[in-house]
Amino acid sequence: MTQAPTMNTPSSLYDRIAQNFAAQGLMATLGATLEAVEVGEVQIALPYSPKVSQQQGFVHAGAITSIVDSACGYAALTQLPPDKDVVSAEFKINLLRPAIGERFVAVGRVQNAGRTLIVCTGEVRAYTAHSDAYKVVALMQATMVGVAR
Amino acid sequence: MTQAPTMNTPSSLYDRIAQNFAAQGLMATLGATLEAVEVGEVQIALPYSPKVSQQQGFVHAGAITSIVDSACGYAALTQLPPDKDVVSAEFKINLLRPAIGERFVAVGRVQNAGRTLIVCTGEVRAYTAHSDAYKVVALMQATMVGVAR
Amino acid sequence: MTQAPTMNTPSSLYDRIAQNFAAQGLMATLGATLEAVEVGEVQIALPYSPKVSQQQGFVHAGAITSIVDSACGYAALTQLPPDKDVVSAEFKINLLRPAIGERFVAVGRVQNAGRTLIVCTGEVRAYTAHSDAYKVVALMQATMVGVAR
Amino acid sequence: MTQAPTMNTPSSLYDRIAQNFAAQGLMATLGATLEAVEVGEVQIALPYSPKVSQQQGFVHAGAITSIVDSACGYAALTQLPPDKDVVSAEFKINLLRPAIGERFVAVGRVQNAGRTLIVCTGEVRAYTAHSDAYKVVALMQATMVGVAR
Repeated sequence: MTQAPTMNTPSSLYDRIAQNFAAQGLMATLGATLEAVEVGEVQIALPYSPKVSQQQGFVHAGAITSIVDSACGYAALTQLPPDKDVVSAEFKINLLRPAIGERFVAVGRVQNAGRTLIVCTGEVRAYTAHSDAYKVVALMQATMVGVAR
Repeated sequence: MTQAPTMNTPSSLYDRIAQNFAAQGLMATLGATLEAVEVGEVQIALPYSPKVSQQQGFVHAGAITSIVDSACGYAALTQLPPDKDVVSAEFKINLLRPAIGERFVAVGRVQNAGRTLIVCTGEVRAYTAHSDAYKVVALMQATMVGVAR
Repeated sequence: MTQAPTMNTPSSLYDRIAQNFAAQGLMATLGATLEAVEVGEVQIALPYSPKVSQQQGFVHAGAITSIVDSACGYAALTQLPPDKDVVSAEFKINLLRPAIGERFVAVGRVQNAGRTLIVCTGEVRAYTAHSDAYKVVALMQATMVGVAR
Repeated sequence: MTQAPTMNTPSSLYDRIAQNFAAQGLMATLGATLEAVEVGEVQIALPYSPKVSQQQGFVHAGAITSIVDSACGYAALTQLPPDKDVVSAEFKINLLRPAIGERFVAVGRVQNAGRTLIVCTGEVRAYTAHSDAYKVVALMQATMVGVAR
């Protein structure tokens, strides 16, 4: 007889975030995928495509922001009970260099989880093909709020 | 005998911004359109659609940010000579309430144009059908940088 | 028989803010004074003095930030009941130009008061002697939180 | 025969930052001291005193911001040639918890040094007496600009 997984095991945590992620129409529209989920850290990937570009052909700051905002929000969600959802109260992003690359990975991390506000930091890494080396193209500092589901 | 329009007449200014806007793949992907161009102020509209949603069905903070970032960038571009383009150095956005509505209009305005940095503020207005009343759903403060085209 | 003034008359509102302001050691240390209190807007003044300078002799960004942070906080406090106090959750400031002048006035304004978060904008104006003209040297966007007194 | 220290040796770097720090009237007014200087990282300390307090007796967000803004600025300055000075273009700070402690240390670090803009992150650590343990009370993300001295 197998036992059902308890809540907050890694797999149920991943499933909870993945289910929420799948409901974000924008992530599918951009072509973003959920890459990794740990307690306090979530990664979201975005392949380059002309549909997310700005006028010079690089990835638009809005697309970069979208994936790292979601990564920060989901990092916050990993630290909330299953009956909670999360929304962004505010964030700030510095675009360090043009978002040039074949693939981008946004990493969101919880820095402090207070009673009402969860402060996260995020970065977006740009990868070229055939290499694990990356350049950080953006840094985010964000405030998330837990809300009833 | 008619005279050719000189640069920086309203029409040539609109054309310059519209041409740049048309090259932003992300704006078409989101369904955003260029609404108004004046020296120092640009408006971009976004109709609601599930493809720009977050998990609760409202518009994703990333989509809201994308249109107001572009509106701020183009507001800055209206104050630069035609051989210049503009990129976002950084911005901060406060999401004041859930982005619920049928249509959203981002307004970007130049607050101060220095030699290298142009500081803009932006807001995003949510409209329901059949009414001119709106609610401000987001406030942005942004730094743009002029670059060679 | 005279009646005691009810809470939230302009005078009691001013008194409440002034009493709180007087308890901020930093404001006295900088030489800042409470200038004006209305529901949703507060002004704080700072005369130039070498004791608030940065290395070039202009006013330090930290002093500019201190007065506009307090102005935003008190603007938020004017919209909270008397048993509440307010703390800053986060803010962002753009320094538009060197803070050169003889007197500076920070203006904080409430933009949106939600259930837990109050979003404010602020600006700092630089005045020279013998003139009402001013230059805006800084713009702030801030999130305040109401707390029990 | 002894050799004069060349520029950019650790000692001359420290001296350059210390000389600039000594010219910031605000740092002396707050009671802040320069603690550590490395290429790309600077630390500034602030003892608790009622003169830097907010209304509840904790350290005012403005004082916390002042030391971490200076720490970020000096971190940027360590990566600029000696004929340059640095000013803050903008910063954003999250106040994670009340600034309670006996001593605070602001750490500023360069994250990316571009041609015109230097992006830094900072944190402020709160210490109580007789312990090396600390709590991070604030996180900053800042943009500095090099200017002619």
